Amino acid sequence: VTGTPLSGETTLGELGELGVVAEVVARFPATSHALLGPGDDAAVVAAPDGRVVVTTDVLVEGRHFRRDWSSAVDVGRKAAAQNLADVVAMGAVPTALLVALAAPPTTPLAWVRGLADGLREEAAAVGCGVVGGDITAAETIVVAVTALGDLAGLAPVTRAGARVGDQVAVCGRLGWAEAGLAVLTRGFRSPRSLVDAHRRPSPPYDAGPEAARLGATALIDVSDGLLSEAAHVARASGVRLDLRAAALTPDDELVAMARALGADPDAWVRTGGDDHALLGCFPPDLQLPARWRALGTVRDGAGVSLDGMPVDGAGGYRHYG
Amino acid sequence: VTGTPLSGETTLGELGELGVVAEVVARFPATSHALLGPGDDAAVVAAPDGRVVVTTDVLVEGRHFRRDWSSAVDVGRKAAAQNLADVVAMGAVPTALLVALAAPPTTPLAWVRGLADGLREEAAAVGCGVVGGDITAAETIVVAVTALGDLAGLAPVTRAGARVGDQVAVCGRLGWAEAGLAVLTRGFRSPRSLVDAHRRPSPPYDAGPEAARLGATALIDVSDGLLSEAAHVARASGVRLDLRAAALTPDDELVAMARALGADPDAWVRTGGDDHALLGCFPPDLQLPARWRALGTVRDGAGVSLDGMPVDGAGGYRHYG
Repeated sequence: VTGTPLSGETTLGELGELGVVAEVVARFPATSHALLGPGDDAAVVAAPDGRVVVTTDVLVEGRHFRRDWSSAVDVGRKAAAQNLADVVAMGAVPTALLVALAAPPTTPLAWVRGLADGLREEAAAVGCGVVGGDITAAETIVVAVTALGDLAGLAPVTRAGARVGDQVAVCGRLGWAEAGLAVLTRGFRSPRSLVDAHRRPSPPYDAGPEAARLGATALIDVSDGLLSEAAHVARASGVRLDLRAAALTPDDELVAMARALGADPDAWVRTGGDDHALLGCFPPDLQLPARWRALGTVRDGAGVSLDGMPVDGAGGYRHYG
Repeated sequence: VTGTPLSGETTLGELGELGVVAEVVARFPATSHALLGPGDDAAVVAAPDGRVVVTTDVLVEGRHFRRDWSSAVDVGRKAAAQNLADVVAMGAVPTALLVALAAPPTTPLAWVRGLADGLREEAAAVGCGVVGGDITAAETIVVAVTALGDLAGLAPVTRAGARVGDQVAVCGRLGWAEAGLAVLTRGFRSPRSLVDAHRRPSPPYDAGPEAARLGATALIDVSDGLLSEAAHVARASGVRLDLRAAALTPDDELVAMARALGADPDAWVRTGGDDHALLGCFPPDLQLPARWRALGTVRDGAGVSLDGMPVDGAGGYRHYG
């Protein structure tokens, strides 16, 4: 430990664990909910509601991101986003993140600094901060993020409350991250709008607590594809979600790119993951804010249907990867 | 998904992600603090104090455990224990665990079942449960656990409150896990008492909240060795921890094993990690319960001393591994 700023070329192995921790912690400023931040055995976070919402999600290099496709900042933002989206999908306001990082000793310090910056930036977008973590060596990079949230006196909005007659609506983009991944997979780096949708999702964070205040009966984060998430709600609630195909029209950018790649833009919208839109069910007569797009209606039965026709396999076997 | 129980020989890759999740979740019963358990976007945990203590720690196969030395249950217990110990080291009562698991598709289901059982058993020892998690594929096994806790109205006991004149005391074993690791490293599997100390630590969980109630001024979990942890307290509190060498006499079992292996039992006691004893500082005149063993006194200065002689390097560079 010296007074000289460390080069980003320095590796984690050269710097040692305490040095890496010091570098990372310096990038996480104190935030309002953090009563005690990084540096002790554990952090202390405000939980004014008396209940805390908590979730954890992992990103693995080579499976969830590639260092030649995404910058370290991108990976940090994505790791934070997918966890923050899970918190707001309960109707809660995020209050803190923790990060557990396993990375090879050869990893440059610059990469870890970027990861920390990405986590901090995405957390700041919802007014929270990174309050703790752990770092250790491993063969490949594994980023496990935990997010906490506060319900502000409201009941958590689960997947299990949808009732027959409820409206089904979505807030946020569908298919963009999947289209961006398709672009990268074919060896292209543009259009930037699609590629960035894969690199760093933009979940509509404040729509989660908004849905809770509006009286949403069910709410879920669309991380694995719309039809699959709709099937989760249907199963948990004991109902059928009947969606209108006309409401699932791909955005123009997706149609154009699908034509160029010979791909199916409808598949991106219906089964593409990682945009972290929010899918909600709401009482029948509720007037929803404009950003919530009506998708269909909750009906008797099971599973998911499109214009009344059952959709096969939504939410069935998911490859272990 | 069938009605037939799955063989433990089934691999994660064969079972698919949802199948693995269902298998694991079935092993995590509801517990009192879990207002909403696994299966939704996030869990909801009671935080009656209005503040939540939270920490995360990672275990990596080949670095923190070996599958030929530790059973899956052992790994689960150890992963839970090191996080629960961090929670009690703030003076808090653990309320919930979450687990993020990355594992190769070839991993047998039986191993993951064992890991889940170990996590559940260790959590049950402190009256909490596993409320959520994530599972994904990776080249090596990485287990990232997050633990939550409740302060029950008391101030968190940090590393920073030790005052000159305070007594220094420890609760729990020192050097046993390190001795067990030395035994395994030399190719032996016994004595069982030492080997088990490495495989599944037994932190004195209730001593953490007890220390908080007794008015501890500083508290830390001994995960990286006594002298290193004492140095953390000294640095955070701006004091010196003066320990008595006579109070650091190795237990008879350690002396006997060190003689057999040609090792130094004093080094195990002073620098061995992973037993998760609790090191605390307490007001001078407090009568401590018998299980808290007096180690020394907080004095003016910096760092750690043994019988007044400065100890070099305590808490300095830690290898990145």
